Amino acid sequence: MEFTHLNPDGTARMVDVSEKPPTAREAVARGRVILGEKVFPLVRERNLPKGDLFGAARIAGILAAKRTPELIPLCHPLPLSKVEIQFELNEEDQALEIEARAKTVAQTGVEMEALTAVAVAALTVYDMCKGIDKGVRITDIRLVRKSGGKSGEVILEGGLHGSQKA
Amino acid sequence: MEFTHLNPDGTARMVDVSEKPPTAREAVARGRVILGEKVFPLVRERNLPKGDLFGAARIAGILAAKRTPELIPLCHPLPLSKVEIQFELNEEDQALEIEARAKTVAQTGVEMEALTAVAVAALTVYDMCKGIDKGVRITDIRLVRKSGGKSGEVILEGGLHGSQKA
Amino acid sequence: MEFTHLNPDGTARMVDVSEKPPTAREAVARGRVILGEKVFPLVRERNLPKGDLFGAARIAGILAAKRTPELIPLCHPLPLSKVEIQFELNEEDQALEIEARAKTVAQTGVEMEALTAVAVAALTVYDMCKGIDKGVRITDIRLVRKSGGKSGEVILEGGLHGSQKA
Amino acid sequence: MEFTHLNPDGTARMVDVSEKPPTAREAVARGRVILGEKVFPLVRERNLPKGDLFGAARIAGILAAKRTPELIPLCHPLPLSKVEIQFELNEEDQALEIEARAKTVAQTGVEMEALTAVAVAALTVYDMCKGIDKGVRITDIRLVRKSGGKSGEVILEGGLHGSQKA
Amino acid sequence: MEFTHLNPDGTARMVDVSEKPPTAREAVARGRVILGEKVFPLVRERNLPKGDLFGAARIAGILAAKRTPELIPLCHPLPLSKVEIQFELNEEDQALEIEARAKTVAQTGVEMEALTAVAVAALTVYDMCKGIDKGVRITDIRLVRKSGGKSGEVILEGGLHGSQKA
Amino acid sequence: MEFTHLNPDGTARMVDVSEKPPTAREAVARGRVILGEKVFPLVRERNLPKGDLFGAARIAGILAAKRTPELIPLCHPLPLSKVEIQFELNEEDQALEIEARAKTVAQTGVEMEALTAVAVAALTVYDMCKGIDKGVRITDIRLVRKSGGKSGEVILEGGLHGSQKA
Repeated sequence: MEFTHLNPDGTARMVDVSEKPPTAREAVARGRVILGEKVFPLVRERNLPKGDLFGAARIAGILAAKRTPELIPLCHPLPLSKVEIQFELNEEDQALEIEARAKTVAQTGVEMEALTAVAVAALTVYDMCKGIDKGVRITDIRLVRKSGGKSGEVILEGGLHGSQKA
Repeated sequence: MEFTHLNPDGTARMVDVSEKPPTAREAVARGRVILGEKVFPLVRERNLPKGDLFGAARIAGILAAKRTPELIPLCHPLPLSKVEIQFELNEEDQALEIEARAKTVAQTGVEMEALTAVAVAALTVYDMCKGIDKGVRITDIRLVRKSGGKSGEVILEGGLHGSQKA
Repeated sequence: MEFTHLNPDGTARMVDVSEKPPTAREAVARGRVILGEKVFPLVRERNLPKGDLFGAARIAGILAAKRTPELIPLCHPLPLSKVEIQFELNEEDQALEIEARAKTVAQTGVEMEALTAVAVAALTVYDMCKGIDKGVRITDIRLVRKSGGKSGEVILEGGLHGSQKA
Repeated sequence: MEFTHLNPDGTARMVDVSEKPPTAREAVARGRVILGEKVFPLVRERNLPKGDLFGAARIAGILAAKRTPELIPLCHPLPLSKVEIQFELNEEDQALEIEARAKTVAQTGVEMEALTAVAVAALTVYDMCKGIDKGVRITDIRLVRKSGGKSGEVILEGGLHGSQKA
Repeated sequence: MEFTHLNPDGTARMVDVSEKPPTAREAVARGRVILGEKVFPLVRERNLPKGDLFGAARIAGILAAKRTPELIPLCHPLPLSKVEIQFELNEEDQALEIEARAKTVAQTGVEMEALTAVAVAALTVYDMCKGIDKGVRITDIRLVRKSGGKSGEVILEGGLHGSQKA
Repeated sequence: MEFTHLNPDGTARMVDVSEKPPTAREAVARGRVILGEKVFPLVRERNLPKGDLFGAARIAGILAAKRTPELIPLCHPLPLSKVEIQFELNEEDQALEIEARAKTVAQTGVEMEALTAVAVAALTVYDMCKGIDKGVRITDIRLVRKSGGKSGEVILEGGLHGSQKA
């Protein structure tokens, strides 16, 4: 009998975290939706024909954070202990800033949960604005801070305001 | 640059439970499906054209309990350690009584899991009876007991029989 | 060889609708959450500590309507063409009335989608109020109207106001 | 009895598309993951410790497209007839370009499906690279083309190469 | 600028079925769970400690059929018009035979839905028997018949009884 | 008033594991897809028209492992700490061998997660080969090893190669 090995070391797998101790972890991610001049005033005045943008995007983002391991193949399931999403209108860029904050006590980090919350909240914003301008664009989805685990605190960016000043 | 804050303290968020210690928790919820005189005898005689009502409703309720955090936006994911669903035929009211019991060891309670199990089991009952009488009605979904966590044991109602006598 | 048949006519199954022509269908369902005297004023004043109740419950109900066939074992998947959820505060009963309306063009009705939307919206209301009063209770989830398909229009109840007068 | 109406015209709802005829529809969306100088060579040489990036991101994106209506609250369920995801390495910007193409025959467009596929493929890329550089950033998720429906063909951008030249 | 193409013709994609006309389609799949001498009598006597095997496995299989496109990456979503699961005890082989039948009117076949129903029903059987014998084994999951579409009727095997005689 | 009890001891329920201490657990499961002479060479040469078989099946299996408690009614949710899937071509039998390995630290075992990963990976293989030969067949899905918990290490079969020699 003859076998051909198909599993070089580089094949995709969920890495083993069972030896790592659970620690308190937090991650903050941000993204921006560039609304443009047609959509921005309608969002600011809460006047969109499809209804309450912030409520829908916030709930969609929170729910998506909880489904991160169903969406991202190699993510470990985590007992999320907090998810929070904030919005800020950025008049200068006619954009909406989205920030998600996730916490857990687990063997691995919550970056993906925070990033997924931002991405799905942003997609929900697009969906509710696309009838007015299909050119709305989602951009700058990134991790801004994480803490807990072996790497301790990692700060990639300042506060929500500070990040805008750059 | 100018920002308009959109996040008053009252916006929806999954509250932070990461500081709470995990404790053993249990919740019992109940509900009633008023079947009426056309449907009740068919349920009692297990003679419904769509098949085994109790098996389908029980499995649907158990599966739904596990998906509670996907359905209820601000619910925390929980490692459910037990779910059980019981039925009783209430001849007097031509109704079906449903009771769900859920357990976990976690930082937050399992009330929503027990209530969701009852609600989805009841919806499954409706679905299997609606071909005979569309007037079937789901009612009195409520928490009857919980234990564990800061508030300790809370008993809102007596045993399944007792509750009927009221 | 010997076989024991395990499939009497009464076993659960998704019935065959492939011979039925697709028709426009609509269903309206309602339910009530009895909030009680502690919770009712907080809901009316939009002052709940967990945040925007109506936004969260509405989105949860709409999303749940779309997942009805995942939750209710014998439901057929349907291309939902509309889902809408409305709330009314019922001062007299210190209750919140919930109404869901669903539409499709399909071979089978949308009753379960409308009822599921009401049930999950009501569970979300419970979740957001349970920190204040665990005795909140979900009641009277029922179909009030359906149209389309072989049975045509079926009206079980009048308008949202009318139903309250009874 | 007294009711307080809580449903101004602006509340979120899945709009009614039941009167619209189904037509063939297609949408193309794109996004970019800025990998940076540490991650880019590993992706190019297919040398990431977490394994086959393109296979994982492609499958994650295709699966996510099919779950769009579960994630985006007001999206209608659609019978997707095709989903395809392509990647291109952009040496100049040390970035990975992602393009998703979705088709359906339905009453409403597939823009959200294509955008969701791009977003989840990009999140999967981040997940597989974050062990090397947490500063990887997802950017420029946008619609580039759609056809079908009332608005006919809408071209917001040229071919995958052309878009890079801008 | 320089691009490296990463999408040879062989990359995974959901193939385009938008040009194919919807036709009535049916598929029948079967599988076998070899229970062995410890488990078989308990299943036959319906005496398993975990409860009603057939009800649980049937509902699990039906629900899984509806989620096939979420599980199998390149499967198209289908409006299932019927799913039915049957069991037969095979005394000779101390096995349980499982048959699933799925129907739709669609542009592509329902083989995967029928096969997924069988596989998940069989996994459910394993789960309910594993406390007694971990050596239970799932085998011979295969398509036995399909009809509809370009290839018309394809019969790979005779009736449930006949197949056993082979 | 009169009640008819419907819950004999034998009704399906998720058993209570809340008293069991969490321990490190691992499970290994295997299965085989008999490809046959038409499909086998195409798989070996990676020449299937639907694209990269191993990448798609591996990701599908890993994602399915994480969704096991949604699919298998009485399974407890588990914090999976590792999932890995391996393939081997078996020239002699013109078959593909699939092995899944799952780990957790939990109150109950991960057998179902490993078995579900194998089953869904195998279904994905069928899906990608069915255009060439509908007679492909999934067989011998079984547990080969488990450790952790009360029963300690249970070895039902030797290494992947050894198992082939039998």
